[in-house]
Amino acid sequence: MTGPRPGARTGSAVALGGGHGLHATLSALRRLTDDVTAVVTVADDGGSSGRLRRELGLLPPGDLRMALAALAADDDSGRRWGQLVQHRFGGTGALAGHAVGNLLLAGLMEVLGDPVAALDEMGALLGLRGRVLPMSCDPLDIEAEVTGLGSNGALIRGQVAVASTPGRVQRVWLRPDRPRACAEALDAVKAADVLLLGPGSWFTSVIPHLLVPELREALITSPARRIVVLNLAPEPGETAGFSPEQHLAVLSQHAPELRVDAVIADVAAVPVPERLRQTAAAMLAPGGRVHLAPVAAADPAVPRHDPAALADALGVVLAELGTVQHPAGGATEPDTHTGPDAHTGPAPHGSVPGGQETRRANPWR
Amino acid sequence: MTGPRPGARTGSAVALGGGHGLHATLSALRRLTDDVTAVVTVADDGGSSGRLRRELGLLPPGDLRMALAALAADDDSGRRWGQLVQHRFGGTGALAGHAVGNLLLAGLMEVLGDPVAALDEMGALLGLRGRVLPMSCDPLDIEAEVTGLGSNGALIRGQVAVASTPGRVQRVWLRPDRPRACAEALDAVKAADVLLLGPGSWFTSVIPHLLVPELREALITSPARRIVVLNLAPEPGETAGFSPEQHLAVLSQHAPELRVDAVIADVAAVPVPERLRQTAAAMLAPGGRVHLAPVAAADPAVPRHDPAALADALGVVLAELGTVQHPAGGATEPDTHTGPDAHTGPAPHGSVPGGQETRRANPWR
Repeated sequence: MTGPRPGARTGSAVALGGGHGLHATLSALRRLTDDVTAVVTVADDGGSSGRLRRELGLLPPGDLRMALAALAADDDSGRRWGQLVQHRFGGTGALAGHAVGNLLLAGLMEVLGDPVAALDEMGALLGLRGRVLPMSCDPLDIEAEVTGLGSNGALIRGQVAVASTPGRVQRVWLRPDRPRACAEALDAVKAADVLLLGPGSWFTSVIPHLLVPELREALITSPARRIVVLNLAPEPGETAGFSPEQHLAVLSQHAPELRVDAVIADVAAVPVPERLRQTAAAMLAPGGRVHLAPVAAADPAVPRHDPAALADALGVVLAELGTVQHPAGGATEPDTHTGPDAHTGPAPHGSVPGGQETRRANPWR
Repeated sequence: MTGPRPGARTGSAVALGGGHGLHATLSALRRLTDDVTAVVTVADDGGSSGRLRRELGLLPPGDLRMALAALAADDDSGRRWGQLVQHRFGGTGALAGHAVGNLLLAGLMEVLGDPVAALDEMGALLGLRGRVLPMSCDPLDIEAEVTGLGSNGALIRGQVAVASTPGRVQRVWLRPDRPRACAEALDAVKAADVLLLGPGSWFTSVIPHLLVPELREALITSPARRIVVLNLAPEPGETAGFSPEQHLAVLSQHAPELRVDAVIADVAAVPVPERLRQTAAAMLAPGGRVHLAPVAAADPAVPRHDPAALADALGVVLAELGTVQHPAGGATEPDTHTGPDAHTGPAPHGSVPGGQETRRANPWR
């Protein structure tokens, strides 16, 4: 089942990221609500996306396409078009490696002259549950300060270069320096009940959202619940050798003002839970906690989150957190969590400290 | 207005051809009926189609795409997707010149593994009035015997080579030699009330349909009314210097058994009407005639048929011809034309020899 549970009340969720990580989050969220918005990084410069971006000067479409596919309707038409947009041409010719959906999205962006209109049109084609938006309407580049390459503070440029560096990434930023955010993405973040950051390529898909000034401001000040979902493993290249707590620490270094309500991590991916809790404490909002649960897919060639397991973990956390008090109305039920330290102690994975009362107050279950 | 006239009764029409000529016929036919099937040549080896065909081993999609665009729904969605499929990428890169619809159709053919299913899916996307089918499900090649190149009976291969030869095309044939017809196209031809051949590139888009054995047999034996629409001008290359009667003559040489019920030509494109009538006489069915009418678009950079004017001319001819007696039922009204020679004398363009009685018996007006 990939739709919301029968009888579930809908809340609005915004997931920020890119690539397979965002695909996993969206696949999980659609099990909890019909109101899902993906806000997608636009700094990719590799593969089909990079070729299209260089050739046509458009937003790199690959991460956008993958988010669209994750939210395609769960019916014959949605599956058929979902399969088509994900299909890649083979061989060794000019089209080899291009996903059909990347070409279609590129064509729509050229014809409609507006990436958001193009994404909405493609969303209609796929019978989309929710909406997919770029973090910015301009293609961006990532630059990184990297150590360990034999010189001090080498600067490398481009998502592919950063993602595959043999050095250690210290800090990333965007070029242009202060890009405009996509207006519709900003609105979605401001109106959200819950915001999800991660999983995904940490420096190149997750952190970039915090480097778009308007988006960073909205992420930090939104009344929404903020949840960080940690990766299952360090990625060769950009986060080689990173522990779970180092992932959290670099996120915090890039946005020290950011407070989050929960950190979800796979129970098997956290060797020393207490160390993660200590690191998390610095960035947790009152009442926030680390939630460890089995969220990895069984037997993956590459570590991947299991959408159903991730949905379960999100459901547990959201049940604890209760709904949001939007300044202009929106959800109105009280925050029912029971105090700043109630859930920060050791918790067996999958446990639900909140009781029946808490669950009923939450729009997600 | 591009839909059938209010109150029009529908009949089934099959137009065979390719490229801009077929686009014109389809644009005219959709004004007369909702039941239009395009049967499209699949021997193109030039441009975007040729590149895709060589790279992916699929049917060349360009002529199919153009036919789809001609039949796209006359509403916002149909116009938007119609514009997208016709959009070509610019620049000088790997995608330059590719129409988005060609790439989309290629992707659908790969994913669905069946060109007819791919065309139907794309038809649904465009809200198609009618259906677009390939003449064969296998990509074909055209070969030609050409004179005037300094040697006797030079053989040239490929649609582009034939279409642009400085020599004089004497005869064309297909490789493979006896290709299978598309089953759905055969069925459409057999069930049609009217069959249209031309206009279009004569040797490379019109005549090829008569070179697919099963299709040729169906075209010759179908109970449908058969109408040939002549080109507005000779084409540089394959028909350079050809008079209207030479167009008819080479068509007849390639299918001597073919009998047609009407030949429509632009009144300004036929310098000596009597000569055309004499040539036509040899291939006209009893009651058939040449109909001259102003069917050219005003002030075209390239000669093009005007869809509304062509629809008018087709309407006149079909009103005269009356409905078809299908062996297995179908239309049942009697053929009301008045004898083999009734309409073969000189006719002022636009004249309607048949009277009120004849018009009422016809499904097209």
